[in-house]
Amino acid sequence: MDLAFVLYPKLTALDLIGPYEVLAHQRDVTVRFVAATLDPVTADAGLIITPTATFDEVDRADVIVVPGSGAWPEPLADGAVARWLRKVHPTATWTTSVCTGSTLLAQAGILDGRPATTHWAVREELAQLGAVVSTDRVVRAGNVLTGAGVSAGIDMALTLVGLIWGDDRARFTQLLIEYAPEPPYDSGTPDTAPASVLAMMRAELGT
Amino acid sequence: MDLAFVLYPKLTALDLIGPYEVLAHQRDVTVRFVAATLDPVTADAGLIITPTATFDEVDRADVIVVPGSGAWPEPLADGAVARWLRKVHPTATWTTSVCTGSTLLAQAGILDGRPATTHWAVREELAQLGAVVSTDRVVRAGNVLTGAGVSAGIDMALTLVGLIWGDDRARFTQLLIEYAPEPPYDSGTPDTAPASVLAMMRAELGT
Repeated sequence: MDLAFVLYPKLTALDLIGPYEVLAHQRDVTVRFVAATLDPVTADAGLIITPTATFDEVDRADVIVVPGSGAWPEPLADGAVARWLRKVHPTATWTTSVCTGSTLLAQAGILDGRPATTHWAVREELAQLGAVVSTDRVVRAGNVLTGAGVSAGIDMALTLVGLIWGDDRARFTQLLIEYAPEPPYDSGTPDTAPASVLAMMRAELGT
Repeated sequence: MDLAFVLYPKLTALDLIGPYEVLAHQRDVTVRFVAATLDPVTADAGLIITPTATFDEVDRADVIVVPGSGAWPEPLADGAVARWLRKVHPTATWTTSVCTGSTLLAQAGILDGRPATTHWAVREELAQLGAVVSTDRVVRAGNVLTGAGVSAGIDMALTLVGLIWGDDRARFTQLLIEYAPEPPYDSGTPDTAPASVLAMMRAELGT
């Protein structure tokens, strides 16, 4: 099973590495990091990742994972990821995204009229791109799985392991990564965050 | 504030990228990825990361983050990380680890007689290295924070943000990464995993 993890400038690393850690340890998988060129790609907080294949080289994949970006909407303006998705999504068994990565799926026409989720701060924008926006953490629409903001990629990918390799393999993977979360605060969504924290965030994001 | 994220061959990427995503977006931080050389480092499932500084170059750091490895105990045999920790830990405000990274702290003498946690599968080995092993997900011993397996790095780092920048900044970060986990299974610890899954894991790990 060929896994394609999409890289582009200013991606959010955890969007990608959550699903990577869950999926890449499965049996009989090939892992590729696909980008416009083979030049190292710098994530939005400085991590530098080396691609292993280019968009031109990769014509098919069994599973596609598209991360979001803290520099959103820059990836939409670039358009390179959406162009590649138009080519490769028809070959994929599963196409997935995390965070604002779903807007790139939408730009490629993959979410037209279909339910999808995204980072809580860009729900309206995803709706404008044609998706039926859900506030759920993980949303399945046929062979497309979308996850909410950043950390939701872990939940999305464990769901995907269950769909592909079965529940026990997903449980095995959860145990391997000791995923029994204990957030030290209760501020992970706009509904649970204190109003003052949400206001600080909206001021910083300019929304 | 200088953040030093430690890289070495076959590290577990999510151990590192969880804390990176939480810490590197804070204000007035400098992010460095420190390794034996500047050659790209390949993680235990294929991700290739480029270091930005060498162990020789970096003599101090305010925060140190040491990830674990799926190829454990190879990093112990190598010894390079422990040698660097002996030099830099005395300069650090906070020294932290995720997963089997705590065994590298222990090898450097940082955990002698102190409480610490690690991946559930190597608790006995961490005790043999001199730590007082806890099964807690995040353990603080003075200026040393250790996290349990892989995904626990997110909880560890949010705890650290609270300690350094205050509770509201930690809540802000939790909201930014939409960390309201919904694991699709209940199998994240040996206590909650089905016995058959735990047996499969022990067979694979050879423990």
